Amino acid sequence: MSLIVQKFGGSSVANAERVMNVAKIVTDTYKQGNSVVVVVSAQGDTTDDLIEKAKEINTNPSKREMDMLLTSGEQISIALLAMAIEKLGYPVISLLGWQAGFLTNSVYSSARIKKIDSARLKTEIDNKKIVVVAGFQGLNSAEDMTTLGRGGSDTSAVAIAAALHADKCQIYTDVDGVYTADPRKVKNAVRLKEITYDEMLELATLGAQVLNNRSVEMAKKYNVEVEVISSLNPIPGTIVKESTKMEKMLIRGVTKDTDTSRISIVGLTDVPGVAFKIFSLLAAKNINVDIILQSVGRDNTKDIAFTVGTKDADEAVKACESLPFIGDAKIVRDDSVAKISVVGAGMETHPGTASTMFEALFNADINIQMISTSEIKISVLIDKKDADRAVSAVHEAFFNVD
Amino acid sequence: MSLIVQKFGGSSVANAERVMNVAKIVTDTYKQGNSVVVVVSAQGDTTDDLIEKAKEINTNPSKREMDMLLTSGEQISIALLAMAIEKLGYPVISLLGWQAGFLTNSVYSSARIKKIDSARLKTEIDNKKIVVVAGFQGLNSAEDMTTLGRGGSDTSAVAIAAALHADKCQIYTDVDGVYTADPRKVKNAVRLKEITYDEMLELATLGAQVLNNRSVEMAKKYNVEVEVISSLNPIPGTIVKESTKMEKMLIRGVTKDTDTSRISIVGLTDVPGVAFKIFSLLAAKNINVDIILQSVGRDNTKDIAFTVGTKDADEAVKACESLPFIGDAKIVRDDSVAKISVVGAGMETHPGTASTMFEALFNADINIQMISTSEIKISVLIDKKDADRAVSAVHEAFFNVD
Repeated sequence: MSLIVQKFGGSSVANAERVMNVAKIVTDTYKQGNSVVVVVSAQGDTTDDLIEKAKEINTNPSKREMDMLLTSGEQISIALLAMAIEKLGYPVISLLGWQAGFLTNSVYSSARIKKIDSARLKTEIDNKKIVVVAGFQGLNSAEDMTTLGRGGSDTSAVAIAAALHADKCQIYTDVDGVYTADPRKVKNAVRLKEITYDEMLELATLGAQVLNNRSVEMAKKYNVEVEVISSLNPIPGTIVKESTKMEKMLIRGVTKDTDTSRISIVGLTDVPGVAFKIFSLLAAKNINVDIILQSVGRDNTKDIAFTVGTKDADEAVKACESLPFIGDAKIVRDDSVAKISVVGAGMETHPGTASTMFEALFNADINIQMISTSEIKISVLIDKKDADRAVSAVHEAFFNVD
Repeated sequence: MSLIVQKFGGSSVANAERVMNVAKIVTDTYKQGNSVVVVVSAQGDTTDDLIEKAKEINTNPSKREMDMLLTSGEQISIALLAMAIEKLGYPVISLLGWQAGFLTNSVYSSARIKKIDSARLKTEIDNKKIVVVAGFQGLNSAEDMTTLGRGGSDTSAVAIAAALHADKCQIYTDVDGVYTADPRKVKNAVRLKEITYDEMLELATLGAQVLNNRSVEMAKKYNVEVEVISSLNPIPGTIVKESTKMEKMLIRGVTKDTDTSRISIVGLTDVPGVAFKIFSLLAAKNINVDIILQSVGRDNTKDIAFTVGTKDADEAVKACESLPFIGDAKIVRDDSVAKISVVGAGMETHPGTASTMFEALFNADINIQMISTSEIKISVLIDKKDADRAVSAVHEAFFNVD
């Protein structure tokens, strides 16, 4: 007797067989007496294939036409999933983003949801239909198609769950939950039963991309309980919610991010406001700066180092070069770094966390280049070639439950 | 300074190169100072590929979901064509059927246009945009996607031309006009400069499928001047309009239709109303009956023969078998027939037309099985194996201008 929102990503609906598998999961949920709204992404590589088609014609198309092109992808998958559910003999209707009431702003390719007009959704649910909704898409005030950006289907699902006050929002994926580390690389990685929104946000930011970040922010804002669950392995997944029962385990996970670059400015003349000017320029260019290290150099100069996403590194270097006070300072970019982080809400009250982490890295003979801490995470920058070893060593230190 | 509607079919936009070719034609028209609305179909085999995908999941999906699936096809092609026009540096916007204001009834898979709300179209034209519209599709009063049926993009184009009082509606295709016979088979086939709506309708019905029939009916109703023109060969095509300058040429064309079957009922007891009952039953089952022949048989019985489209032949035979008065009459179906027709508006005032046709067939040693005449056409049923020879012989008799 619950209202359940279920979301399936592109790989879950990549071919006819998988679409039938999703139809099975959905109708099983419906059969138990629940109302079900299903959000789906475009099939498999459809989005990439469409982008490829576009590039053959125009390498720099307008974002409006790109959104027009890409929204056809989910349209195909909702129709196919609805047909699969019809095949199993259940009442169903597919709805495009705009039919489901998704109103967005006009930032094509990464639109924000402004409102969900849920009248049609409610009518179809009242009519006992399983409702299949196209994720990732909406309509702006000009009545043009928009997309929410990559991973936007997670956000679509959470937004519907919030608008309908759903009892649960299940995000089906190809992993069976959130782990303390990448289970393909770290033996003894443990699946978490529960995790808070803030912890999940840190994990997402740090490269453990199980859930799209904006979806977690929205879940937090509207207090939507999200379950990360496997579409292939029907066991309970990980629940993401406001506060969790404090488990014995303090740390929620160990992650690595190898798409990071360090930029060092060495030998800056030490005048006031230098750091402020650098980082406000980078902010103006929408470049997110992560770890920052500032140190006094020789001869009344200072050195400033920081990390940015590798995709932004070129532009960050150019921005630094354009600074009027850069003088003879040397700008050095280094892509051979990785960021290793431990995340966990209880951390701030346990001062031993940092030292456990640093000791583990020391014992593994891994050099720490930079350190950054927040209330719920500690990140270190190390040599990229040591990244996997570092994750294993740190995970072992926290999770070795022998 | 004219408003021109141009329509391009699936093969005209089948790949990147052809899309660029269409963009060139469209922008050339725009450059000359015209307002341009372009209607496109789904690329090449897209529609068939989507139907294939659906059949893998459900061999009998609802028509509503099928329309949801298929309308994604034109969405892809309008976005790609808009990108191609952007690439050439012209202002452009793509619109889905519903964005262009196509309101239809709810007969999924073969919806009828009820109204075009042209406000958005007019705004974009006033903004000097080239407007690219998805053909074949609309929205019903439930705000669900509908399709107009195969060939519906022609109808979309004519409907827009009617709604906007366009100066011209150009239907681009892979032939360069309407010919007096299939130019691939009949040497000396002549391209017509002009043809009337009624003549075009007869030619379409008779198997010369250059224009979708409903589009011609709509063009006639709203008096839209249609030009059939080649997207590969930029020469003037054939103009379809209400009345044409009477050319010396009386006959507009010679066509064959090989998708026809003859059904004969032999030895019916001759009571009044027999023919009426047969044909009203077939009409109730939406089976179009074409040529009808009735003759007195032996022993106070009569024979009735008629032709139907081959796709309807099974059902027609079953319907005849179900008639209460069928008694011992024999029902015989023959698919090895073809219908050869000559079409031309001036025909009724020239009694020599029929005899010229019959003489040509006689000289070619081709036997006539049935004959049907109307004000603007004469059709004969012959053996299918003689069809191509018959078209050549009849065409030669009318168009041999030595």
